Amino acid sequence: MRAVIPYKKAGAKSRLSPVLSLQEREEFVELMLNQVIDCITEAVIENVDILSPSGYGLEAMKKARVLLDEKDLNEALNSYLEEEDGPVLIVMADLPLLSPEHVKEITSTEKDICIVPGKGGGTNAIFIKNPSKYRVRYYGSSFLTHCSIAADFGQSFEIYDSFLAGTDIDEPEDLVELLIHGKGPAKDYINRKFKLAVSRGRVILVPL
Amino acid sequence: MRAVIPYKKAGAKSRLSPVLSLQEREEFVELMLNQVIDCITEAVIENVDILSPSGYGLEAMKKARVLLDEKDLNEALNSYLEEEDGPVLIVMADLPLLSPEHVKEITSTEKDICIVPGKGGGTNAIFIKNPSKYRVRYYGSSFLTHCSIAADFGQSFEIYDSFLAGTDIDEPEDLVELLIHGKGPAKDYINRKFKLAVSRGRVILVPL
Repeated sequence: MRAVIPYKKAGAKSRLSPVLSLQEREEFVELMLNQVIDCITEAVIENVDILSPSGYGLEAMKKARVLLDEKDLNEALNSYLEEEDGPVLIVMADLPLLSPEHVKEITSTEKDICIVPGKGGGTNAIFIKNPSKYRVRYYGSSFLTHCSIAADFGQSFEIYDSFLAGTDIDEPEDLVELLIHGKGPAKDYINRKFKLAVSRGRVILVPL
Repeated sequence: MRAVIPYKKAGAKSRLSPVLSLQEREEFVELMLNQVIDCITEAVIENVDILSPSGYGLEAMKKARVLLDEKDLNEALNSYLEEEDGPVLIVMADLPLLSPEHVKEITSTEKDICIVPGKGGGTNAIFIKNPSKYRVRYYGSSFLTHCSIAADFGQSFEIYDSFLAGTDIDEPEDLVELLIHGKGPAKDYINRKFKLAVSRGRVILVPL
C-alpha cells in the first residue's frame, strides 16, 4: 500500500489571505503537510509520496519520497495511479484533524474504494484498492464525481463519515475548527496568532 | 430513554434569509424537524419530546409530545433534565443529514455522555445517561463547554465524529451539503429552489 499527498507550498491557501500573510500561509501548509505525513506513518503505511509541481519547500523532506510533476493535479494523480499496482490512499495535505485511527479505518474498508468527503462537495481522501480501475477528478463537486466514477468502473465504494477527516482547512472559519478540535504543530501555530471569541452566538477568530 | 428536540418555528433560521424568505424558512425548518423526529423514531426511541417556547407550527404535531417552555433554551433544557430519571438524547432540529444509524450509535456509547460536535464549535446532539449529573450550556463554543461540564460532573464522555451528524443547517453554504449528501423532504424542498454550480473551483448554490 502507498499513500500519496498532493502538495504545493508556493502561494498556498490564498483563501486564508484575509488572516494570514503569504509567508505565514506557506509556513502553515508545511506544518499541516508534516502532520498528515506523521499521521499516515503512525497508521503503519510505510510508503508515503508527496506529489508536487515543484520542489519548493521540499528540499529537506526526509519523511516521504518527493515526486515532481508539473502537470495539473488530476493528470498528475492519474499518471501516478496508472503506475501503481497495489492499493493507493490519496490524502489532501490540509487535514490537520486527521488521525492515524481515521487512516486505519479508511484503509480497512471492505469495498473497492473508500471516499472521505470534505466540506462543500470536496474529497479529502480516497482509498483505491485497484488503481488500474479508477481515475480521479478533483475540483468542483469532486465527492459526487468520485462516487460516479467508482460506479462507472464497477468498483464498490464506501463513504467515510467523519467530521474531523472531513475538515479541510481553506477558509478562516476552518481555523476555528482547528483551534477547537485540533492538536499538534498546525494548531499550535494558529494558537499563537489567534484566539477564539464569541460574537452574536457564533465562534470567531480574533487576532492576538 | 427519551429524546428531546428544541424547536422554534417563528422567524427561524435568520442566517438563511439571504436565500430563503421568512415563509420558506418556516416551511423548511418544519420539514427538517419532521425528518429528525422520523430518524429518532426509526432508531427505536419511542418517546420524543419537542421543547418549544411557543405552540406555533406545532398545533397538528402527532409524532411527538409538545412541551411548551418560554424560558431561554438552556434553562428550559436544564429544567427538562432535572425532571428526567433515565437517559436523555438532546438533538437539534436542523440536522437533515442525521440517520437512524447515527442515533443508534450515539445512544450506544459506553461512556456517560456522548457529544456530537457541529460546525463552528456547536453541539448538534448530546446523549446523557444520568441527567441528574449534567447541565447543558448552548450558544458560543458549546462543544468545548459541554466537554468541560462532563468533566466537572465526573461524567466520562465520548466525542462522536460524524460529518453528516455534524452538519447543522444555518448558512446558505450548509444547503450545499444538504443537496450533496441529503435525502428526504428537506433536501427535496431545497432541490426545488436551487441547483449546484461550480464557481472558481467551489460548489455554490444557484436559484432555479
